Amino acid sequence: MHIDQLESPAAVVDLDKLSANITRLQSYLDKHSIANRPHIKTHKIPEIAHMQVDAGAVGITCQKLGEAEVMARAGIKDIFLPYNLLGASKLERLMHLARRVRISVTGDSEVTVRGYAEAAKAAGQTLPVLVEFDTGLGRCGVQTPDEAAALARIIARSSHLHFGGLMTYPSNEQTDGFVAETRRLLAADGIPMETVSAGGSPGMWQAHNNKEVTEHRAGTYVYGDRSMVNIGVMSQEEVAFHVIATVVSRPTDERAVLDAGSKALSSDGARMGTGYGLILEYPDAQIEKLNEEHGWVDLSACTAKPQIGERVTLLVNHCCVANNLFNEVVGYRNGVVEVTWPVAARGLLQ
Amino acid sequence: MHIDQLESPAAVVDLDKLSANITRLQSYLDKHSIANRPHIKTHKIPEIAHMQVDAGAVGITCQKLGEAEVMARAGIKDIFLPYNLLGASKLERLMHLARRVRISVTGDSEVTVRGYAEAAKAAGQTLPVLVEFDTGLGRCGVQTPDEAAALARIIARSSHLHFGGLMTYPSNEQTDGFVAETRRLLAADGIPMETVSAGGSPGMWQAHNNKEVTEHRAGTYVYGDRSMVNIGVMSQEEVAFHVIATVVSRPTDERAVLDAGSKALSSDGARMGTGYGLILEYPDAQIEKLNEEHGWVDLSACTAKPQIGERVTLLVNHCCVANNLFNEVVGYRNGVVEVTWPVAARGLLQ
Repeated sequence: MHIDQLESPAAVVDLDKLSANITRLQSYLDKHSIANRPHIKTHKIPEIAHMQVDAGAVGITCQKLGEAEVMARAGIKDIFLPYNLLGASKLERLMHLARRVRISVTGDSEVTVRGYAEAAKAAGQTLPVLVEFDTGLGRCGVQTPDEAAALARIIARSSHLHFGGLMTYPSNEQTDGFVAETRRLLAADGIPMETVSAGGSPGMWQAHNNKEVTEHRAGTYVYGDRSMVNIGVMSQEEVAFHVIATVVSRPTDERAVLDAGSKALSSDGARMGTGYGLILEYPDAQIEKLNEEHGWVDLSACTAKPQIGERVTLLVNHCCVANNLFNEVVGYRNGVVEVTWPVAARGLLQ
Repeated sequence: MHIDQLESPAAVVDLDKLSANITRLQSYLDKHSIANRPHIKTHKIPEIAHMQVDAGAVGITCQKLGEAEVMARAGIKDIFLPYNLLGASKLERLMHLARRVRISVTGDSEVTVRGYAEAAKAAGQTLPVLVEFDTGLGRCGVQTPDEAAALARIIARSSHLHFGGLMTYPSNEQTDGFVAETRRLLAADGIPMETVSAGGSPGMWQAHNNKEVTEHRAGTYVYGDRSMVNIGVMSQEEVAFHVIATVVSRPTDERAVLDAGSKALSSDGARMGTGYGLILEYPDAQIEKLNEEHGWVDLSACTAKPQIGERVTLLVNHCCVANNLFNEVVGYRNGVVEVTWPVAARGLLQ
């Protein structure tokens, strides 16, 4: 089947570009001796995770326990969860998972770390825990090397925890200094720092500039989207993920309506100020508004305009949230469908 | 099980409030002799659709063929699709569905209507088609009564189509005039206007002001959300749908991070200007930013502040897109879980 025959809206992935994106980042990180631990939140598809591991990734990153459970069931052996996991039920699931695959987790507070310690002890297992630190994003993470060292000491002294190192997102010019100072503080206690894990696709080609970082977690790079193109880390031609939509209405000369709305594209990227995605065939058109199943397109800047029933290809603003809205993603090569992948870890939000 | 024991993030529905919302709108529309055809895009759950029909709805509204297929399988007998359906594959599915339940559809162009005519003829069935018109929203719909009448004539003269009337969203002060003029134009051809279907929860309590409207389609009312409360059509106490989240990090005195981000709440409502949802227990807190699995909360205006591990209840900005992000919704009464509903029609975007 040709992708032109797929019903719209459809999420499609160019398999050649997908492979090229996987290889490109792996080669770059290999060259700089940085471990690659791709973040599967972008695709949530076990088959793509296996492609990443087969290409040389040391393991994967999952943002949610539910994602990790799906990936472990699918045979992924090494999973990092850069997220504070709290509550008896989640910790029980975590330790259950840790019996089957190598799981490492993250904490940025004593509350989180104490929970891990108790759960690991009850399970009779040793759990690697990295400390999350913040050097500018202002989201999670301890704020100072002193705090990081204090938490690392609690982890290192817990009978069933193992201090795995530090984790941050994203890395920046303050990261190396923070890490070096934390290492210095811990050296006095004889606590080594194994891994320094940093992340993000926006900064992936600068990963080598942070000499302290030993591991990189990128997610979006595998597909690519308009945000990646806009910031210049991927070319439009390298993007593997698109949404195919159909023009379902042309109520006026200057307006088209697509069958892709916020339940296909998400409202992410509204603040890009240039619409909710780019129509590749009509780059002068502007997707100015989304309802749940309608994309409002302003054609006033277009010379050629699409007809009712015409199919268009959308470069989405943010592929990670768009992918998450589809039950299935279709992989194709040279326009021909090769595979349909269920987005297996989608909706497993807990 | 108490809802306090559910893992977060969880989408929960207060069953008493759900029933009250269903009854309240049904009673209002009954009082004004307006047919109630609720839009199931909000919940996508067959069991709730059945509650709406059992309360007196004449049928349901679905935005997507995939939703209609799920609802038909679940025993719903009368479904309206207020959407232009295009393409051989979709039209085949449509006619397949029309063999099993009463399906009516919408068109706003000759292209769409010709497609319906051919598909209905090939299937040997008669398909009711309503004409969509636009009196101000600026989305889909014919622009003038002349256009509406011309399309109605094409439908009425097609051997296997039946002109079902007019459809718009939302209705406003120009709606009645548009309908009356279209009726006048069609009277000359002896074409009656059966149904005038208008929609929306924002205008639901004004539905009786449009004397030409015979049927109302509301979706959001069944749950309610912050947008409904903000515009004053529902009280905060009437809202049945919430997302339960956990505070996973308190990196600074003025910041909390929740385990509910754009993949639990969606980015809708960014333009509300007051954050991505309201924390009921901390109304002075502001959810200022979302990442996929992180909600950034500014606590600077709060006197009392939540602790790490504390659970909070979120009034979401837009329940229809939040509900769509969950695999399951939990129904409870007086805090006790009674039912877990799969969001059966979710992700069936085509």
